[in-house]
Amino acid sequence: MAMMRKAKPREVFFGRLSHGDDLLEEISNLCLRENIQLGWVEALGAVKKARLAFYNQETHEYQFFQIDQPLEITKLGGNVSLKDGHPFIHAHITLSDKAGNAYGGHLAAGTVVFACEFKLEVFDGPSIKREFDEATGLPLWTMGD
Amino acid sequence: MAMMRKAKPREVFFGRLSHGDDLLEEISNLCLRENIQLGWVEALGAVKKARLAFYNQETHEYQFFQIDQPLEITKLGGNVSLKDGHPFIHAHITLSDKAGNAYGGHLAAGTVVFACEFKLEVFDGPSIKREFDEATGLPLWTMGD
Amino acid sequence: MAMMRKAKPREVFFGRLSHGDDLLEEISNLCLRENIQLGWVEALGAVKKARLAFYNQETHEYQFFQIDQPLEITKLGGNVSLKDGHPFIHAHITLSDKAGNAYGGHLAAGTVVFACEFKLEVFDGPSIKREFDEATGLPLWTMGD
Repeated sequence: MAMMRKAKPREVFFGRLSHGDDLLEEISNLCLRENIQLGWVEALGAVKKARLAFYNQETHEYQFFQIDQPLEITKLGGNVSLKDGHPFIHAHITLSDKAGNAYGGHLAAGTVVFACEFKLEVFDGPSIKREFDEATGLPLWTMGD
Repeated sequence: MAMMRKAKPREVFFGRLSHGDDLLEEISNLCLRENIQLGWVEALGAVKKARLAFYNQETHEYQFFQIDQPLEITKLGGNVSLKDGHPFIHAHITLSDKAGNAYGGHLAAGTVVFACEFKLEVFDGPSIKREFDEATGLPLWTMGD
Repeated sequence: MAMMRKAKPREVFFGRLSHGDDLLEEISNLCLRENIQLGWVEALGAVKKARLAFYNQETHEYQFFQIDQPLEITKLGGNVSLKDGHPFIHAHITLSDKAGNAYGGHLAAGTVVFACEFKLEVFDGPSIKREFDEATGLPLWTMGD
């Protein structure tokens, strides 16, 4: 059964990352710097190259892969919650190449920004913490109960 | 010509679906349970398999198809409005496979959750109802006029 | 280094575009009509055909291309800021065909709506203006400093 908790919007940040930034690390840095504990990020832009992951649902391991070419970010969507007491970003990304073909996966460090514009929403609410989930092998959300 | 109506954010739910849930049915259940009449949902995660649809713009029929393999949800986006007096979810989804190739379509029942984290925004505003639209053959939004 | 600014949600519009509209032009018209200076748009639906662009990161030119067939909009995401003193939409789109294959890119004029439902959020905050950026060749966000 699904679980969910109510939150209230606190504020919103609009921003852009810099040319050459590591996409995931720089968003993480912003969240750590602002101590954002509950958030949601949406973004678009382009990357010089991408490093993504696919979660193997049988072996419970991330399989990392790179796409070593310029790509549009058609969509990045992710959330901010707490893992081991610190703000943690979980983001997935959809990309496209010069022919318009689309790619996607779990965003990993190693994806290099060409340009990126984002909206980062911050919420007040009960803390959402990631803890190991046996069924999936992933650090999933628990909600204070 | 486009039509649009103003609404005000009321509250936001953060949550996760459970391993094995039917993705569309479980989001629908949450909206029915909370009586959400106007909303917007964004999500990411992974599915064990997907059942999607493509709307045939000539015959005005949905063509359903399955992708019988584990996939990342790179993005789910959908809205909640009223159809036949009840909360109704309309959602589209983008997925990716182990090689990073992306797929997508209209989310149909039969898509099975591996893990899924969502933000469900609820709004106060004029009711938006779906009614049959002749030009498209779809139940599209009408807005009280 | 990333730059970002705080904003506050003002209001939200829910709406739909009309059958046959130019997707980008009609969203732009709505923003001009309502004088939206800072916003974010999310949408789903379908198009009769798409005209997209891929930004060539070496030559600093957009390469436009068309996909001349009906497609689902699995996701449109974009922002509204100021360019040359006027509201300006920057949107990327993910699409899918009847086989479920996904495509994407920078949304260009010439994409024709079959049906499209959107959420357009409007914010109060410091103005965000697009100005020429040497490193990328693009009109990127500056934030009043």
